[in-house]
Amino acid sequence: MTNPRADRVKDVAKLVGRSSRTRRRQFLVEGPQAVREALRAHRDCLVAGGTAVVDEVYASRECLDRYPEFDEFFESTQESGGSQLQMRIASELVLAAMSDTVKPQGIIAVCRFVDVPLGEVLAAKPLLLALLCRVQDPGNAGTLLRAADAAGADAVIFSNSSVDVYNPKAVRSTAGSLFHLPVVLGADPSTVAALCRKAGLGVLAADGYGALNLDQLQDESAARSFEQQTPESAYQLESPTLWLFGNEAQGLSAAELELVDHRVAVPVYGAAESLNLGTAGTVCLYASARAQRRPS
Amino acid sequence: MTNPRADRVKDVAKLVGRSSRTRRRQFLVEGPQAVREALRAHRDCLVAGGTAVVDEVYASRECLDRYPEFDEFFESTQESGGSQLQMRIASELVLAAMSDTVKPQGIIAVCRFVDVPLGEVLAAKPLLLALLCRVQDPGNAGTLLRAADAAGADAVIFSNSSVDVYNPKAVRSTAGSLFHLPVVLGADPSTVAALCRKAGLGVLAADGYGALNLDQLQDESAARSFEQQTPESAYQLESPTLWLFGNEAQGLSAAELELVDHRVAVPVYGAAESLNLGTAGTVCLYASARAQRRPS
Repeated sequence: MTNPRADRVKDVAKLVGRSSRTRRRQFLVEGPQAVREALRAHRDCLVAGGTAVVDEVYASRECLDRYPEFDEFFESTQESGGSQLQMRIASELVLAAMSDTVKPQGIIAVCRFVDVPLGEVLAAKPLLLALLCRVQDPGNAGTLLRAADAAGADAVIFSNSSVDVYNPKAVRSTAGSLFHLPVVLGADPSTVAALCRKAGLGVLAADGYGALNLDQLQDESAARSFEQQTPESAYQLESPTLWLFGNEAQGLSAAELELVDHRVAVPVYGAAESLNLGTAGTVCLYASARAQRRPS
Repeated sequence: MTNPRADRVKDVAKLVGRSSRTRRRQFLVEGPQAVREALRAHRDCLVAGGTAVVDEVYASRECLDRYPEFDEFFESTQESGGSQLQMRIASELVLAAMSDTVKPQGIIAVCRFVDVPLGEVLAAKPLLLALLCRVQDPGNAGTLLRAADAAGADAVIFSNSSVDVYNPKAVRSTAGSLFHLPVVLGADPSTVAALCRKAGLGVLAADGYGALNLDQLQDESAARSFEQQTPESAYQLESPTLWLFGNEAQGLSAAELELVDHRVAVPVYGAAESLNLGTAGTVCLYASARAQRRPS
């Protein structure tokens, strides 16, 4: 493909906009790393008898020469049969016309929406969940999803009126994590809190004004693993937990704070007025992950 | 001031570019929160007999009406005498012409460079330092500076060939932290490592392939505080520490890794290939801060 004005190119480029994404339930994934993760998820899904994740891949000859794994992947999926996956060589001009980036990275995949219903997440008996309430910046949404993936969270839930996680900038920021753990979109926070509580999870808010201190919860959790007698706060960090994280500028609203069992502050040791969303989210999720995975 | 083409406006706007900043040793600070932190630092410096931090402030009438603290600040500094600080009312058009943002937030300060020499940092007997090696993205640089501030780090050091921390986007990302803790710029990593080691700091690299595991170091540190007998790794996290963090895409170079005592990995519990720079830096600095501040 060499004509950047071809109908097919325009069709792909439309997925940069939210309305086309929503209507077609497809989104764009750009760059070798993210496309690799999408293709892995695609293969794993098909092997497990599920539906396709990737519908089309467009790559430059240079990119395929540089990353021979893509050709190998296409050969192996063709051999295993049943895949509808289309793979086409495209010029850099075509790739640039398909993307919203100035420098496309040589490969673009058109993927199907991967979000799942909350019920599916809860059926898998999760230990660690994150609920992002009204997060607005696509980069923050992607970064938190990647941090939740690194911390081994079982899923990330986005509230209604959050940024679209299928926005190309959000997808880039996830660095492939969108294909690693289940994502729930458009959720109502009070429903999420109620269903998670019913499923045995404690519900915590990351809140700079919280009465509980995250470091103290961590130390108490470590003390329990050493069978030490120490004062005990009202929450055990190793318990199955849903964390609520708020909007970048306003944090959690009064109504959202009403939904939680406890408000937990990440301590600020220096002069910073507050933590940014990514920092607070990372520290909270890692603290839970470590407490839950400590050999007892 | 109402004329966006006035010479003074053009003079301020030139500070969006690095060459003017470097020549005049001045930079722009935008928005109520950051300007407030700059003015606090300015007042604290003058009270301590130091030099000015802020040279000029331009604000809209609306902004001053909304944040009366600024008027109070100017009155109190005038009364205390000796301040050369200039404060002018400017129209939104003038503020937009001075800034690189589409929506200026009603107030802009022209500040003097605040970075200090490494010797000054070491003379204060630091416990926790961060050295950012070849960080390229202004947002990442600012976010890490803010996270280091929150973790109570004693200073942040930027290597030569890092992004300019006085870049307006970096300044915005710090949310005022640039005025909370000392910053060293243009440092040579091998000199920093050698001088820090001489000053009694251990030198650690945040490195996904590190032999030491950060969670294990944290648990061992907690165990020591409980006087538990546990296996001991080669490093005690409560020791005075310099952390090295690498470039966003490539991490630390072989030469940079040669400079450290130990390479420490932040564990990845999920399927993420790696952590991004902000996430890894935050987790490492918070782990050190907590170990150093645990009551023993």
